[in-house]
Amino acid sequence: MRTHDVVVIGAGSGNAVIDEGFSSLDVAIVADGPFGGTCLNRGCIPSKMLIRAAEVADTVRDAGRYGVDARLSGVRWRDVRDRIFGRLDEQSAQGRQGREDEQNITVYDGTARFVGSHRLRIETADGPVDVTAERFVIAAGGRPVVPPPVAESGLPYETSDTVMRLDELPRTMVVVGGGYIAAELATAFSAFGVDVSIVEQTSALLAGQDEDVVETFTSEARKRFDLHLGREVVGVEGQPGALQVKLDDGSMLAAELLLVAVGRQPNSDRLAVDKTGVETTEDGRVVVDEYQRTAADGIFALGDICTPVPLKHVANREAEVVSHNLKHPDDLIRAAHDVVPSAIFTRPQIAAVGLTEQECRDRKLAHRIGKTAYADVAYGWALEDETGFCKVIAEPDTGKLLGAHIVGPQAATLIQPLVLAMTLGLDATAVANTPYWPHPALTEVVENALLDLAD
Amino acid sequence: MRTHDVVVIGAGSGNAVIDEGFSSLDVAIVADGPFGGTCLNRGCIPSKMLIRAAEVADTVRDAGRYGVDARLSGVRWRDVRDRIFGRLDEQSAQGRQGREDEQNITVYDGTARFVGSHRLRIETADGPVDVTAERFVIAAGGRPVVPPPVAESGLPYETSDTVMRLDELPRTMVVVGGGYIAAELATAFSAFGVDVSIVEQTSALLAGQDEDVVETFTSEARKRFDLHLGREVVGVEGQPGALQVKLDDGSMLAAELLLVAVGRQPNSDRLAVDKTGVETTEDGRVVVDEYQRTAADGIFALGDICTPVPLKHVANREAEVVSHNLKHPDDLIRAAHDVVPSAIFTRPQIAAVGLTEQECRDRKLAHRIGKTAYADVAYGWALEDETGFCKVIAEPDTGKLLGAHIVGPQAATLIQPLVLAMTLGLDATAVANTPYWPHPALTEVVENALLDLAD
Repeated sequence: MRTHDVVVIGAGSGNAVIDEGFSSLDVAIVADGPFGGTCLNRGCIPSKMLIRAAEVADTVRDAGRYGVDARLSGVRWRDVRDRIFGRLDEQSAQGRQGREDEQNITVYDGTARFVGSHRLRIETADGPVDVTAERFVIAAGGRPVVPPPVAESGLPYETSDTVMRLDELPRTMVVVGGGYIAAELATAFSAFGVDVSIVEQTSALLAGQDEDVVETFTSEARKRFDLHLGREVVGVEGQPGALQVKLDDGSMLAAELLLVAVGRQPNSDRLAVDKTGVETTEDGRVVVDEYQRTAADGIFALGDICTPVPLKHVANREAEVVSHNLKHPDDLIRAAHDVVPSAIFTRPQIAAVGLTEQECRDRKLAHRIGKTAYADVAYGWALEDETGFCKVIAEPDTGKLLGAHIVGPQAATLIQPLVLAMTLGLDATAVANTPYWPHPALTEVVENALLDLAD
Repeated sequence: MRTHDVVVIGAGSGNAVIDEGFSSLDVAIVADGPFGGTCLNRGCIPSKMLIRAAEVADTVRDAGRYGVDARLSGVRWRDVRDRIFGRLDEQSAQGRQGREDEQNITVYDGTARFVGSHRLRIETADGPVDVTAERFVIAAGGRPVVPPPVAESGLPYETSDTVMRLDELPRTMVVVGGGYIAAELATAFSAFGVDVSIVEQTSALLAGQDEDVVETFTSEARKRFDLHLGREVVGVEGQPGALQVKLDDGSMLAAELLLVAVGRQPNSDRLAVDKTGVETTEDGRVVVDEYQRTAADGIFALGDICTPVPLKHVANREAEVVSHNLKHPDDLIRAAHDVVPSAIFTRPQIAAVGLTEQECRDRKLAHRIGKTAYADVAYGWALEDETGFCKVIAEPDTGKLLGAHIVGPQAATLIQPLVLAMTLGLDATAVANTPYWPHPALTEVVENALLDLAD
């Protein structure tokens, strides 16, 4: 059994832990999949590249409203796909090669599980290999949840792991789930001409977002998708390419393809982390303290396997913290997760930070709302936007932001000054009044929402 | 002769001076053109709406690179135009009506000039009308400069005042000038299919921007336009619709339409401000102090007629200052113009704040550069962007930003966190490290440029 100084389980964000500060240590990286992890290979990045192509297709379709006559003659799906994965697969391979070229790093390929304290078994192509180390980094991520009626049907289905690599576009697709992954993929495939039905068990899409965001997004989604809200899938029938998805009201949805996107679960179960004394929450997340330490001595965790906020920018920050704390056991640093923004690259695009209005109500927090529609600023006129808005929520006494929610073009970019203001605890009205906001940039929608707080 | 309490000359930003605080005063507004001024009727706003349509046309043309097959079958120019001015002309008319409906406000239509101290003559349709007041607000804006060889040719030409309202698109256009107005209009009309030549007397477009911005923009412009840099127009020959523009090297450019966009000049000469004791600079700008007061007692000025930075957001802030100072003569406030961002909605889009690298060099300021290409962040991959960048300049000792320059999609939106950071004097590295920057939003190009300062 080989003993390393540090074993990193996962080739995604965990890989970022290992920098030049580890060059004198014997490091192992266990890769249960391509380097770059979910983000680069199956998540954030390919989906954004897919969605950009979708935006282009939608822009062509909508060109007429701007006085531009255009015709969409088709979407070359394989070219769309290969543009994305041609670039990303190469990056992933380069990431692997870079690690393999380093003298002090061993890359193990295979699924791993703990078989004892600080003892990990990796099922490689050449058979099982056991390794041990005083220090482990658990960064094995998560995977899509598949509801039993789908899993047990024996019929084919796709997840976010696979659907972006299809060989052919289906004509029809049923998406199970109404969260951000479902919404992004549904947006993309519908723009490519796929007839998309969405089945979501709650009464709206993007539940958990601010109520105004949910309302606007669900209302817009109704125009693009065949929505089945408050419904669950109870079975799948038919045959590959001609599926019948059965809902709990007895209705059947016919589709060539079934995409399951009901959420993700941490891979702690597959990793059998309990065998090494690592504790998990009821929903399977590895429990870490503020320094990213698990209950087991010398074992850290980061990213989707432990965080309640499975976002890449959170995992990146946790990786920095783990990297530091491994190198400086006597000078541990904490990860700061107080103000975590998120963005959903749907149509319309969505970005959020902090509390929703309903959370403020539920927590009985004194709060004021400021809100401006894209349609009320000049760049919104240019965009012909009729649904977008920026909504900000602030403490009446201090003027500090409690949350911000943006729906519409460039939302993911527009949120940043609000993230900065909220992180620094700046007064919202001063953020509107002190700096210039160039006219007639789209940022005026943020400026005016902040000014609206004072009215 | 009618005596008012306050006379505002100009129906653009000057109009914003008059709020409910003036309701007990007898106010006159002198409108030498439509309400809303240059910005709403001939400037920022219609040009942005035009450019959005141009972006749509360009997106259709470029769709293939994303795997989307599209064909641009045509641009319905009159629909483009009418979409813009249908909305804006109505807003302008509503602005006028709102003022005319107010009991205490008199609107005079016509060109005005001072004929004595605090005495203004307005050439109305019904003949000249003289008015006087103790307090004036000079907000009569500016107008396009027309070089003598064009003006004296007797042949037709357009300016930014007129070109967006054409009845027909020309097939060919010569644009004289290489500043932001020339660049924006050339970008728009070329996207609509017009063959555009640009004649600029300096050796690059957008002179005055950061040198990297100038280089990138000029290089991209060379692909879209027939560029004649370092050249001047010495004459115009031919006939309307078949012009021959003669350059100083003897060459001739044939074009159906000539667009003059070499700059703008303040309207102080037409207004004969010297007659009321108002001083002007050599280039005709009304001289104001930090409270927007001119040399003449009770006479304020704001906007393009006085500012060295003729941007609408500057005029808006000056209007707030004048409004306050007219109402509170014993509690004057200053306009804060230290950190003024600007945006140019060309392709690629450009945004800037603070000093350029060459200004830092010229002033011998210690400075560090941080720079990140769009092509080095994930959303840049989605956009397939190959030319964009974010460049930040900071003081080495304090980490404070001296300037920031962005070229590429959403530049005008991306600049805002940098404007905020610079206005507040925040440390650039802390701005990168303290707040989250959502992945993989385009804001990562700003985050990484800031991080690059520390390398």
